[in-house]
Amino acid sequence: MAIKVGIFGYGNLGRGVEQAIRRNPDMELVGVFTRRDPASLKIKTEGVPVYAEEALEKKEVDIDVLILCGGSATDLPVQGPKYAALYNIIDSFDTHAHIPEHFADVDKAAREAGKIGIISCGWDPGMFSINRVYASAILPGGTPYTFWGKGVSQGHSDAVRRISGVADARQYTIPVPAALEAVRAGKAPELTTREKHTRECFVVAEEGADLERIEREIKTMPNYFDEYDTTVHFISAEEMARDHAGLPHGGSVLCSGVTGAEDEHTHVIEYSLKLDSNPEFTGSVLTAFARAAYRLQQEGQCGARTVLDIAPAYLSALSGEELRAHML
Amino acid sequence: MAIKVGIFGYGNLGRGVEQAIRRNPDMELVGVFTRRDPASLKIKTEGVPVYAEEALEKKEVDIDVLILCGGSATDLPVQGPKYAALYNIIDSFDTHAHIPEHFADVDKAAREAGKIGIISCGWDPGMFSINRVYASAILPGGTPYTFWGKGVSQGHSDAVRRISGVADARQYTIPVPAALEAVRAGKAPELTTREKHTRECFVVAEEGADLERIEREIKTMPNYFDEYDTTVHFISAEEMARDHAGLPHGGSVLCSGVTGAEDEHTHVIEYSLKLDSNPEFTGSVLTAFARAAYRLQQEGQCGARTVLDIAPAYLSALSGEELRAHML
Repeated sequence: MAIKVGIFGYGNLGRGVEQAIRRNPDMELVGVFTRRDPASLKIKTEGVPVYAEEALEKKEVDIDVLILCGGSATDLPVQGPKYAALYNIIDSFDTHAHIPEHFADVDKAAREAGKIGIISCGWDPGMFSINRVYASAILPGGTPYTFWGKGVSQGHSDAVRRISGVADARQYTIPVPAALEAVRAGKAPELTTREKHTRECFVVAEEGADLERIEREIKTMPNYFDEYDTTVHFISAEEMARDHAGLPHGGSVLCSGVTGAEDEHTHVIEYSLKLDSNPEFTGSVLTAFARAAYRLQQEGQCGARTVLDIAPAYLSALSGEELRAHML
Repeated sequence: MAIKVGIFGYGNLGRGVEQAIRRNPDMELVGVFTRRDPASLKIKTEGVPVYAEEALEKKEVDIDVLILCGGSATDLPVQGPKYAALYNIIDSFDTHAHIPEHFADVDKAAREAGKIGIISCGWDPGMFSINRVYASAILPGGTPYTFWGKGVSQGHSDAVRRISGVADARQYTIPVPAALEAVRAGKAPELTTREKHTRECFVVAEEGADLERIEREIKTMPNYFDEYDTTVHFISAEEMARDHAGLPHGGSVLCSGVTGAEDEHTHVIEYSLKLDSNPEFTGSVLTAFARAAYRLQQEGQCGARTVLDIAPAYLSALSGEELRAHML
């Protein structure tokens, strides 16, 4: 019997999860849930109903795991604990500073309900976190470095779009090649924020807008851009549509460390991702962890988990025997 | 209180584990156990006693986790079940075809004794297995590729040394650059054994040996060399000592897969290792899993496990709170 999965939120990430479920024969999409008018939503999977959020509250649909595809700023802090009280849930909460608080909220609700809530799934936090932990456990004393890109940062793109006079914007995060190479060579360099990444913005300005002011406002924006070397290109709406429609991303977690009586041997561990579609890959990770959530609850476990608390075997459709025979 | 670790077998791997324990302040080496005469063994850690194997059987030393550093051919199939009946154990059993049988043997002994036995730790099997499972769970339909090298294969070096007229030998396994690049580019090529790796042998021949025969015997050796393009170089004992004393290794697990309604997006996941010392890195992995074994038994679990059954958090010296706050 397939694992019955619900999707709450049908933006880029929700659509990515929908595509991922289609590729996992042991899972079945049983409903998409939305705060919009359900009648206004046309989803890609034939025969699967779209429901209003209220259907979730009323438990109208039999769901094994609910994948929350909302945003970290305002959606997930509310939806996580609310729905962990009713369903096994998965989310991609990615506000690093607030993870401990979100974990505690989901943990409380899930424990009381006997459900599992796996938070902060995706690739960072997510697969990158897993690799930071493995690498630093194997090479204690080594420092894990994380490089993002080249890829579109949706948060930074949104920040540029909020500047007055900007009609549209796309921001690429780009690792500095020399920094990446130094880390790959096991040199364990000390790197400032500016030395690790550059930022490149493509901006469609409104007619008559002051381009110099826009560029200055981007480059000096606190937290988002002021600590980086940023390049700004003004382009037409046509160029934006033609050259920057995708949401590629990726990056690397690198860790070097030494062993031997006199630190004479250097080891470099690298985990890297090259993703044509950030939301579809993130959706694929969420879907694999949905399988884990289902199995954990079947075992009688409950409470909040992160990707660090889940053994790899729980993500695979293969049995323990199959994994040992073919994948180990 | 530190985790008390014993090492059984003091070859390259045992010495690698010894170095790793030194870098993990929550662990303490309490003894090295050997089938040789203990008085003949000089170990690197001051103040730690060397015992004969019998001390293990008699449980003379208080040990939380025993790390078995013997070979897979004849040592571990016997030592695994024997010592899982007495201690939590870790091993690096790497005969892929016999893993299911070894797992069953260790599982039975460990369950009866209430101990944990984690088998097949290291990098392959080990970290590479973990990455094959994660990648294929996230990208179902994608094929994980494993490339080894450039590095010294001890099994292949030994095989060459067994040829009559060979005084010493070192065999390097080398990935074929074109194959690696095709997989990295997400092309998911079909590759034969010959297309994935080449083999390069450095041989010191005995005086008067028939070099042509040695080269022919190497290149046609079933399983080891016959399916590969192999290069053989005859060198002097001095060149061997000068240029080939180390045991570097490494490699990559790569997996590409597609997402999207029309398979329009390709994703590439790569996990790669560059290791100056294969046995010291393997020893570092074993040591991290020793921490996991200790914690699992503290929780009241027992039986055999593989690296696929262990959540990443169990390997880290950090607490769940610390991991969520700093590593997620």
